[in-house]
Amino acid sequence: MSAPKRICQIIKLKPSSEAEYRECHAVVWPGVLAALERAHIIDYSIHYYAPLHLLIANMKYTGTDYEADMKNVAEDPDTQRWWAMTDGMQESLVEGATGSGKDIPWWADTEEVFRFEGKP
Amino acid sequence: MSAPKRICQIIKLKPSSEAEYRECHAVVWPGVLAALERAHIIDYSIHYYAPLHLLIANMKYTGTDYEADMKNVAEDPDTQRWWAMTDGMQESLVEGATGSGKDIPWWADTEEVFRFEGKP
Repeated sequence: MSAPKRICQIIKLKPSSEAEYRECHAVVWPGVLAALERAHIIDYSIHYYAPLHLLIANMKYTGTDYEADMKNVAEDPDTQRWWAMTDGMQESLVEGATGSGKDIPWWADTEEVFRFEGKP
Repeated sequence: MSAPKRICQIIKLKPSSEAEYRECHAVVWPGVLAALERAHIIDYSIHYYAPLHLLIANMKYTGTDYEADMKNVAEDPDTQRWWAMTDGMQESLVEGATGSGKDIPWWADTEEVFRFEGKP
């Protein structure tokens, strides 16, 4: 099997939503995490860089059909309610984006230019 | 043992250096990678977001003395030559930063606001 795909995506956090964003991410709903798990997402972190109001999401995808797994996530009711809340705290960097789970991605994808697995 | 520390750092790439940066990161010097390995760094990726000229580094630290390991990296001659090359391609977001391996960090640290390990 090839190494898992590493995904890195960015978005802007509305400065007025910073506290609210931190609070809900300290206790993410179990249903949202369960949908990620079913979709073969592991090692998922979100980092914040306040001076640029930048959120950076990093995750690994260990499955074999990324599109299908992401479609399942987008159809999960808990995830849809979660996105309805968190999308409002964010400003997408992607032109034409209107929200999570749509054809135009809400988070902006970045390009991997270096990878070093190292030895665990 | 607690979960490895996940580090996420950002910096700007000079647009004029984009091609050169990609080229050298496609074939990073073995000595540079060996120094990272000795310093207990694994699962290291750098992603690029061209519209903001933003480089995003993500890595895991699996050792027990991060400061000491980073000091060893900074003292490695291959790494010093590598940084002398790559620092010139970048613009630090950190006020007062003059280069890699100094007291003021060259890459800007970001803050982890969410983590989900998932099930491998």
